[in-house]
Amino acid sequence: MKSLLNKIPVITNQCRFNVFWNIFILIFILFSSIVISYRISFGLIRPDIYYWIIVFVFAMDVFLSFFMDIRIKYEVICDQRMIARNYLKTFFITDFLAFIPFFFLAFLIFGQQENKTFLHYFMLVLYGFPILKLYKIRHIFGEIQESLNFNPNVRRLIALGFWFIIGVNFIALGWCGIGASEKDRSFFDQYIRAIYWTLTTIATIGYGDYSPDKNSNLQIIYTIIVEIIGVGVFGYIIGNISLLIANIDMARAQFMKHMEEINVSMQSKNLPISIQNKVKNYYYYLWETRKGFDTGNLFTDLPHTLSTEILMHLNRDIIAKVSLFQHTDEIFIKEIVQLLEPVVFLPNDYIITQGEYGDCMYFLSSGEVEILIDNKVINKLGAGSPFGETALLKDEKRTASVKAVTYCDLYRLSKENFDKLRSKYPEFDENIKKIMAERQK
Amino acid sequence: MKSLLNKIPVITNQCRFNVFWNIFILIFILFSSIVISYRISFGLIRPDIYYWIIVFVFAMDVFLSFFMDIRIKYEVICDQRMIARNYLKTFFITDFLAFIPFFFLAFLIFGQQENKTFLHYFMLVLYGFPILKLYKIRHIFGEIQESLNFNPNVRRLIALGFWFIIGVNFIALGWCGIGASEKDRSFFDQYIRAIYWTLTTIATIGYGDYSPDKNSNLQIIYTIIVEIIGVGVFGYIIGNISLLIANIDMARAQFMKHMEEINVSMQSKNLPISIQNKVKNYYYYLWETRKGFDTGNLFTDLPHTLSTEILMHLNRDIIAKVSLFQHTDEIFIKEIVQLLEPVVFLPNDYIITQGEYGDCMYFLSSGEVEILIDNKVINKLGAGSPFGETALLKDEKRTASVKAVTYCDLYRLSKENFDKLRSKYPEFDENIKKIMAERQK
Amino acid sequence: MKSLLNKIPVITNQCRFNVFWNIFILIFILFSSIVISYRISFGLIRPDIYYWIIVFVFAMDVFLSFFMDIRIKYEVICDQRMIARNYLKTFFITDFLAFIPFFFLAFLIFGQQENKTFLHYFMLVLYGFPILKLYKIRHIFGEIQESLNFNPNVRRLIALGFWFIIGVNFIALGWCGIGASEKDRSFFDQYIRAIYWTLTTIATIGYGDYSPDKNSNLQIIYTIIVEIIGVGVFGYIIGNISLLIANIDMARAQFMKHMEEINVSMQSKNLPISIQNKVKNYYYYLWETRKGFDTGNLFTDLPHTLSTEILMHLNRDIIAKVSLFQHTDEIFIKEIVQLLEPVVFLPNDYIITQGEYGDCMYFLSSGEVEILIDNKVINKLGAGSPFGETALLKDEKRTASVKAVTYCDLYRLSKENFDKLRSKYPEFDENIKKIMAERQK
Amino acid sequence: MKSLLNKIPVITNQCRFNVFWNIFILIFILFSSIVISYRISFGLIRPDIYYWIIVFVFAMDVFLSFFMDIRIKYEVICDQRMIARNYLKTFFITDFLAFIPFFFLAFLIFGQQENKTFLHYFMLVLYGFPILKLYKIRHIFGEIQESLNFNPNVRRLIALGFWFIIGVNFIALGWCGIGASEKDRSFFDQYIRAIYWTLTTIATIGYGDYSPDKNSNLQIIYTIIVEIIGVGVFGYIIGNISLLIANIDMARAQFMKHMEEINVSMQSKNLPISIQNKVKNYYYYLWETRKGFDTGNLFTDLPHTLSTEILMHLNRDIIAKVSLFQHTDEIFIKEIVQLLEPVVFLPNDYIITQGEYGDCMYFLSSGEVEILIDNKVINKLGAGSPFGETALLKDEKRTASVKAVTYCDLYRLSKENFDKLRSKYPEFDENIKKIMAERQK
Repeated sequence: MKSLLNKIPVITNQCRFNVFWNIFILIFILFSSIVISYRISFGLIRPDIYYWIIVFVFAMDVFLSFFMDIRIKYEVICDQRMIARNYLKTFFITDFLAFIPFFFLAFLIFGQQENKTFLHYFMLVLYGFPILKLYKIRHIFGEIQESLNFNPNVRRLIALGFWFIIGVNFIALGWCGIGASEKDRSFFDQYIRAIYWTLTTIATIGYGDYSPDKNSNLQIIYTIIVEIIGVGVFGYIIGNISLLIANIDMARAQFMKHMEEINVSMQSKNLPISIQNKVKNYYYYLWETRKGFDTGNLFTDLPHTLSTEILMHLNRDIIAKVSLFQHTDEIFIKEIVQLLEPVVFLPNDYIITQGEYGDCMYFLSSGEVEILIDNKVINKLGAGSPFGETALLKDEKRTASVKAVTYCDLYRLSKENFDKLRSKYPEFDENIKKIMAERQK
Repeated sequence: MKSLLNKIPVITNQCRFNVFWNIFILIFILFSSIVISYRISFGLIRPDIYYWIIVFVFAMDVFLSFFMDIRIKYEVICDQRMIARNYLKTFFITDFLAFIPFFFLAFLIFGQQENKTFLHYFMLVLYGFPILKLYKIRHIFGEIQESLNFNPNVRRLIALGFWFIIGVNFIALGWCGIGASEKDRSFFDQYIRAIYWTLTTIATIGYGDYSPDKNSNLQIIYTIIVEIIGVGVFGYIIGNISLLIANIDMARAQFMKHMEEINVSMQSKNLPISIQNKVKNYYYYLWETRKGFDTGNLFTDLPHTLSTEILMHLNRDIIAKVSLFQHTDEIFIKEIVQLLEPVVFLPNDYIITQGEYGDCMYFLSSGEVEILIDNKVINKLGAGSPFGETALLKDEKRTASVKAVTYCDLYRLSKENFDKLRSKYPEFDENIKKIMAERQK
Repeated sequence: MKSLLNKIPVITNQCRFNVFWNIFILIFILFSSIVISYRISFGLIRPDIYYWIIVFVFAMDVFLSFFMDIRIKYEVICDQRMIARNYLKTFFITDFLAFIPFFFLAFLIFGQQENKTFLHYFMLVLYGFPILKLYKIRHIFGEIQESLNFNPNVRRLIALGFWFIIGVNFIALGWCGIGASEKDRSFFDQYIRAIYWTLTTIATIGYGDYSPDKNSNLQIIYTIIVEIIGVGVFGYIIGNISLLIANIDMARAQFMKHMEEINVSMQSKNLPISIQNKVKNYYYYLWETRKGFDTGNLFTDLPHTLSTEILMHLNRDIIAKVSLFQHTDEIFIKEIVQLLEPVVFLPNDYIITQGEYGDCMYFLSSGEVEILIDNKVINKLGAGSPFGETALLKDEKRTASVKAVTYCDLYRLSKENFDKLRSKYPEFDENIKKIMAERQK
Repeated sequence: MKSLLNKIPVITNQCRFNVFWNIFILIFILFSSIVISYRISFGLIRPDIYYWIIVFVFAMDVFLSFFMDIRIKYEVICDQRMIARNYLKTFFITDFLAFIPFFFLAFLIFGQQENKTFLHYFMLVLYGFPILKLYKIRHIFGEIQESLNFNPNVRRLIALGFWFIIGVNFIALGWCGIGASEKDRSFFDQYIRAIYWTLTTIATIGYGDYSPDKNSNLQIIYTIIVEIIGVGVFGYIIGNISLLIANIDMARAQFMKHMEEINVSMQSKNLPISIQNKVKNYYYYLWETRKGFDTGNLFTDLPHTLSTEILMHLNRDIIAKVSLFQHTDEIFIKEIVQLLEPVVFLPNDYIITQGEYGDCMYFLSSGEVEILIDNKVINKLGAGSPFGETALLKDEKRTASVKAVTYCDLYRLSKENFDKLRSKYPEFDENIKKIMAERQK
């Protein structure tokens, strides 16, 4: 048996089956909880086809949970044993209780029971066991979010909606259960009117067409409790929805606010419209390429080794293209990578001006530049091109201008930093001197 | 035909016609949406004069949209072809459906229909096509805001108001449509009472004088939906209005808060009232001239070339006045501009004291100063004047005092930075030496 | 006449009469607005004693406004002419209209009028003129707040309360005015019930015992308007009250939050309780002496001359006590003052340890210290004492320890800064050398 | 008597009796306030068993208050006299009035009184004296929180709940007291229905089944007051609960938000999933070990002596293990401790690479590292180990690599700082030179 199980392959997240199943089971738990609580409330408990569908689907879920890969923190675990062990430790017990048809067993033994007997109440409880599946909802939402990688605020909004439906359903059924609904209507009509009463109450509307019977302490106390909890929770939800909606695109909101400040500031300085538009377009460029998050922050927080790894990943190719740095050590490249400063140039900006004394070289990360000698375009360079490296070797005037054609993201390597590096790595210094000697020929 | 169209000039935003038309069409869409939905709800569909006015105005709007300049990001586009292409890609389809009198065509073919037949419902739908114009509302608001350049929070407030009216109108008409209104009243009275019910419900008042018929599931379910959505949206709007009002003058709010902190801090230090008032007046000066935004931030975020351009625009004239810097290169002025530090002096402050060793020169950006020799006023200087430049050339004591008469915004250029510049630009250094030699004669 | 007026002295704020009058007139405007609007609403307009009291008090206010000092920004203006001119420009017109007994004049001419005639309505309007005084409320609140210098959030709370009462009063009287109140009750009972209806509506309670007549469009539309505006404003007020209350002691709230963070941080580091209590007590000390505002910020924002003035005010006396700095220039003291760094020592901390090499001197700003030689207390110093100044002159080991007895706020002057100063001011340097020579004898 | 009292030992907080008693008295005050106000409202005042229990418990509380240790700021005071003096100054008077059976004394003198006589009202007031205990509630909450050291937001939530119950109880009893409840029901039923009315009103539901008698001005005015205050307070509470819940785990919320930003940033840079997971896991590690609070901040705010004390506590042991620093002065260790920089390394990161020139040594604060020579693991070090100290003495290449096995928190001591220390402390420098000489042998 065990060997058989081991043969079943672990269902990895790649094939998207996991996400599908999680979404399905989420919706299924929502409906089954409503159906089961509805039937308990009106005493309609029978092992019919709906009952067996629930039992079957929840059994399937237990089975599949042994074979679907899981995530602990950010590591995906595909080992069947670890998955099983983790499942047994976490959700197995509630899942197990939810799918075993205890009610059916009791039904077989005791048969259909009269209302208001002890056995009847006992069987109501047994019938309600699948509601335990709600315990797993939080986990399922987490799994879906991580698989689809959507905004956590959207997840929270959906989760709020889920629990709101469950909550309203339970309050409404409680209202029916204590006999406050109109008994002469059909069960479904009672249910609809109970939901109507629930919403009218917790949204603090209170038309007064449905209200507790003045002679029933039970109904009055039930209403008091719903008023305290329901109204609080409803107010909390409304408040949270505003907040969540506001947070869904917080980056954009911050960007818009920043733009507004820039705007006011430029107007108070009476800058000409052409410069104002240049500034605005620049910020739009930043927004579109960086989504408003300052990438600088990301690296400064990280440990040295990790930030170097990221920088290496981002800039390795671009550095390898420079003839100066070919045949140099990995360690050396790592050092250079940390010395690069990101700079942005606007269209038509001169990055290098012919005749200036150069004190740095550039690596073009994105965008396009033109090489001009005596104001004639002699070449164009695209993303990934290094230029101006002679300035690192000798104090000469720039022999050509470089002009940005589009917005350009560049990395700048200053002579100062480069010289420090040379003095630190004598082998590299030798290498450079050789290249210089060759070039001067 | 095409050549004819090309002769029609593009209506640019300069002549303000665009703003006028956008505001008109905004209000017109609001009213026509209400009128059309009202008539559909009560089955009052006829191709009467109101109908033809709507058709005509929306046709005009389609026509004009081909000839009004547009903005993409911050660039105004006046080319008739690009405008037409852009319009066809964006709002043409809905605009087109909204103005074609489909209903009239159907009316010609089928004539007036009995209630509750399929054709009747079909013609209701055709009659409702102009409501599609609502799709363009967001765009129109954006256009108006950019033309008039008003506070985006004010725009959002107005937009909220717009959609609130539309929303309440639709909910109320829905209430009439499902037969929940008092049938024996006139259509208009039914409409007023439906609006009354809608507001009483979504504002969670719920008098209970109008509430769904207890025997109508349809009305109860409709109310449930209005309660969930309407109440949520109403709460969201109330919450947003507070926030928007708070944000309309956020700069002022932040300023007031800062003043409060300053106040508490000065009181806890037991500063004399005269100094406290000096500090407060200083902050009021800052607020009035800079609207509370620190202009420093604006420049630090920008790329070097752009911030230089802004600085050049702001300070070029003032620098050109200094005889030292006349006959100097454009590049050189650019360098100086970046070395200026903004400083503020209060009325009666001594900017330069006679007899001190000077280490900087100043450019008076705004305000008025007095030149004093031996405490006698010998001259006054207004905005745009440079002074103290001899300190940049030789280590002498200041030969005169300079005293601020009003609040003065100055730029400071230190000898240290100036010397760096001289060593960097040998031509300029030569120039300076010549001027010094001449002066010393 | 004019010369007579000039003899009347300006009532300055010192004698507190201004504040008293402002508070009185504030309350009086509240009551008179309610009384007048009540009488207009029920048509009870007669030139009785209450009417003449209002006329008299408002006439007094106009008179006094010519003689009470005013504030423009933070300057108090006591010149009678400027006061009069300012008053004529600002509130004179409404104040004038409010006190002239137009109604009485009309009453003399036309006599008591029948209800619902044009003249009756005209006289209702004339009777309502004193309500114009509400225009001045904002100004009066501002005056009171500045005189008493209380928290601006408290002011806003009180102002909110004021306008809330006025608003509820007007809505309620409107309700009576359109005939929605129970006509068979007394005027006062109608008023009370109208207020009850107003509050029940705008607080969104909506019992439904009072609601608009289903057959009166006027009442229904009035209710719709109250629902939209009243509910919005009520929600806004509730939201603002929370915010204002939260802001009243924001400094404390920030402090408490900071303490909480410190707490968690110390617990996660497993620091012993004794150190934890030391840290907590230190922050409590900071809170009690500085109210949580970092005084550093205050000075950095200010222009150089102003911050120097504040520092001079705070530290002048303490510096003048040092024998080294006696007989030195004012300019020199100004320089020193800017070099002082504030430091705090805890009880039992050693500020100076005997035998150490000293590199700074201290000025004790508040607190008490002990001088110890070889662990024996030989002296105590209180606030205002300088010590350790020999370290500024020569590189010697400290000859005594100094220990904090209580929490001590000190200013530190480092030898490094002191030496810079000496090299900058040769006269001072000479002075110091002399003192050193004398001491060495 | 006094000597006897002195023999009773002070009950310190160690034995937890204080917390127990405070919680008990808190709940007891809640119940007794409700019971007493209930009885006063319905005129059920009699010196029965419940009355005597209250008298007895409150007498106990007065007695115990003389013997329970108290806290002033963060110092625990155990001196019996100071406790007594403090108690007499603070809560003794109200506690005293609350426990003396004034009512019983009056009952003995006057006997049971008829309703609505003056004496009856007087005795109602006397009966109500124990409600004065509510004055102490705030203090009790503070005591409990400090003893159990739980989240202050949780405390505020519980306190809000407490006062909410008290408030609703008083409003409901007021409603009964003014005769608005249904007189033909039992007292308890009236009370339940009054609470139902109260909640329905302040939660702004307003069914309208219970509302003030239209003919009773008293009831209408009472309702108006409840509407203004109750609704405002209820709204305030709902708003605060949201805020408090949001603040309970603010650290986590900030962490989650930061993670979200990191996520977006990494996605926009197209970093490979493996690096993304590394970054995420790193932040999770930080969160788990530091709870999101940057410990750096904690120390920078503190005075030098205090931060040194904390650093000494945290790092003393680890430094004492380094043979270099043995036999060195306490003062010297203090200096070193301030030069340590915290650094983090990830699993598999090389902390030291064989063959590099070293410029620092490390102290392993937590985690595990491997020592490798020529890529062979030759040793493992655990928390508390120093390594790489030879680099501080001479410029040699590293003779071994050190690799992090787990996440490692280290402190770094650079050669630069170490050399400064040597030049500052000549004795220490001698010591180091000796050790070096020995090692070189």
